Amino acid sequence: MAIKSFIPPQRTLMGPGPSDVSPRVLAALARPTIGHLDPAFVGMMDEMKQLLQYAFKTKNELTFPVSAPGSAGMETCFVNLLEPGDKVIVCQNGVFGGRMKENVERCGGVAVMVEDAWGTVVDPNKVEQALKAHPDAKVLAFVHAETSTGVQSDAKTLTELAHKHDCLVIVDAVTSLGGTPLEVDAWNIDAIYSGTQKCLSAPPGLSPVSFNERAATVIKNRKSKVQSWFMDLNLVMGYWGTGAKRAYHHTAPINNLYGLHESLVILQEEGLENAWARHAFHHRALKAGLEAMGLRLLVKESDRLPQLNAVVIPDGVDDAAVRTRLLKEFNLEIGAGLGSLAGKVWRIGLMGHACSAKNVEYCLQSLEQVLADTGVIKKGVAVAAAQSVHKSVV
Amino acid sequence: MAIKSFIPPQRTLMGPGPSDVSPRVLAALARPTIGHLDPAFVGMMDEMKQLLQYAFKTKNELTFPVSAPGSAGMETCFVNLLEPGDKVIVCQNGVFGGRMKENVERCGGVAVMVEDAWGTVVDPNKVEQALKAHPDAKVLAFVHAETSTGVQSDAKTLTELAHKHDCLVIVDAVTSLGGTPLEVDAWNIDAIYSGTQKCLSAPPGLSPVSFNERAATVIKNRKSKVQSWFMDLNLVMGYWGTGAKRAYHHTAPINNLYGLHESLVILQEEGLENAWARHAFHHRALKAGLEAMGLRLLVKESDRLPQLNAVVIPDGVDDAAVRTRLLKEFNLEIGAGLGSLAGKVWRIGLMGHACSAKNVEYCLQSLEQVLADTGVIKKGVAVAAAQSVHKSVV
Repeated sequence: MAIKSFIPPQRTLMGPGPSDVSPRVLAALARPTIGHLDPAFVGMMDEMKQLLQYAFKTKNELTFPVSAPGSAGMETCFVNLLEPGDKVIVCQNGVFGGRMKENVERCGGVAVMVEDAWGTVVDPNKVEQALKAHPDAKVLAFVHAETSTGVQSDAKTLTELAHKHDCLVIVDAVTSLGGTPLEVDAWNIDAIYSGTQKCLSAPPGLSPVSFNERAATVIKNRKSKVQSWFMDLNLVMGYWGTGAKRAYHHTAPINNLYGLHESLVILQEEGLENAWARHAFHHRALKAGLEAMGLRLLVKESDRLPQLNAVVIPDGVDDAAVRTRLLKEFNLEIGAGLGSLAGKVWRIGLMGHACSAKNVEYCLQSLEQVLADTGVIKKGVAVAAAQSVHKSVV
Repeated sequence: MAIKSFIPPQRTLMGPGPSDVSPRVLAALARPTIGHLDPAFVGMMDEMKQLLQYAFKTKNELTFPVSAPGSAGMETCFVNLLEPGDKVIVCQNGVFGGRMKENVERCGGVAVMVEDAWGTVVDPNKVEQALKAHPDAKVLAFVHAETSTGVQSDAKTLTELAHKHDCLVIVDAVTSLGGTPLEVDAWNIDAIYSGTQKCLSAPPGLSPVSFNERAATVIKNRKSKVQSWFMDLNLVMGYWGTGAKRAYHHTAPINNLYGLHESLVILQEEGLENAWARHAFHHRALKAGLEAMGLRLLVKESDRLPQLNAVVIPDGVDDAAVRTRLLKEFNLEIGAGLGSLAGKVWRIGLMGHACSAKNVEYCLQSLEQVLADTGVIKKGVAVAAAQSVHKSVV
């Protein structure tokens, strides 16, 4: 057999995540492992909670990282808030709404779907109709930032509608946290989950979540046990809680938590609002370059996520061949389309540490070279267009 | 706020896990993050499967690390193999059998408990009686190496009994994998889960699992959907499978997988059987030192796990005070007792990278210093006793 150590290539990660991880975060991962009940580690956990509260803009006590990737964060929200027979209005305008439906049904719940075209926002009017038609619904679930399309829905308005009809909300903020305005307390969001490998630029494997008092009360007063032992917040909170004594639940992913802690320290140093502005700024530069080249973004300007840009693949261009060349010749990863957008869009991420002028220009330059012989783009203009945006704010 | 980077202390980890992580594995964690669908990463996943097959001594195709800690590996086995109403015979001789019961019940199954005293093995006679009394049981579940007590049960015999009565087995090998003989194929084990932070000495956060054909067939032919979307092997295998095309399921914990890969490369370099022998060898040295000091191991000699030593706390000694002094003065972590053994035993781990002559002697020396003024131990003999074992095999 004789398998050797794995030495990964050095990529530039501009797909839908994972995003480039800063050397500071990589260095944090390699610090010595300590025990999950070590007083030094417990101190780090307290800081982690504060740092996540800062990133989510919340004072929610129940704020911590689930010890597994974002899809486990999603499942943590559903299994804890739902009991068999509960009705959930699920908004779907991309891949992740579909996954929410799966979660509801696997909890023994009933999913009422509100569908919007991929690449458009969740329509508040349709949601209001559904809320009126289903006064017995317990939860409204929607995706704030659809990673599969690059669309940003209006989380504040949707949450207000839900509350007007006595529904809790579950919000997917996997791609929004740290990259675009998100205010858990001001918007009164009940339950929210995110990922680490998007705008926080920590490695994948953890899912920050936050629950307000209303959601926590529902969880504490359940009639049935949570169907997942691993995700049962009544148990997990014995470990992540603030009590004097931490009860062992499961062994936390120590080194991965070091990485998330460091990435949140970096976010705090930059300032959350500054990070949002940086994402918006480099998005404008990328967009200027892409449009100068003759490429088009899928999503309407007002609904675009700065950190995830769905670019329409021009007719006659071989999707996979372009991505393969970018990866092989330029060590540059951009994302493919998912589901009904497979083969129709590329997804260019500008997330966290990867959201920089250098990356915007490198991506435009590389894409231009790969597309140069297809005849579908205008050459020699993209980088200059991006630079003129970059120079505009010095 | 202004929270700073977290710089953990350098401990010696001789508790029940996490164990000391080798500098090679820590360095692997810090390698650049790449995409979870990157061809280079997919190549690493294929190697990971081979390395885990080697560690488990199996050819099972369905062998991979669950993207979450060991308790999620446990849950992965139960949610995939059980359907509502299924009966499971659960053996309990420590903490983790109790967790299995929770898992069965949360899957809508019925748990028939076979209980043995903490610190003793699962009694095959009782198991056989239960199998006879419950011919409708679908699964026998037991813990191979009880981390809470340091007991090793006879997984081969228990599996044979289960098969004689047409039951599948689910085996907890969290603490045994890599530390003590375990042969998945030779013993015909159907489903098994482990952890990374014990004898593999990778950081916590992943759970290696393996399922044989019999178990895979049960999973493929389920009548109901697996209640967990995140853990549904029918979906996960689209990503970890061997098909030409990997389907995106969830984003794998990239850097944590680098660490596990490196720790398995180290295991392969040493040789699995050599690793087992090393654990047995240093256990003998530790035991000689502890006994010379006048301390006693909880578990009967024939049933002891070399990698997890439950030491009876002498009368009049303050459990927590001793552990706190070891941590503060010696940066040495040993484990407390759990459940009915809380306050009654210490758990001294000799796992993976932490299982070395240096650590055995350091632990004995430190413990001796801390216990010196209690009057309950014999001074100045422990290290010499351990050294005489170490010198016996040169």
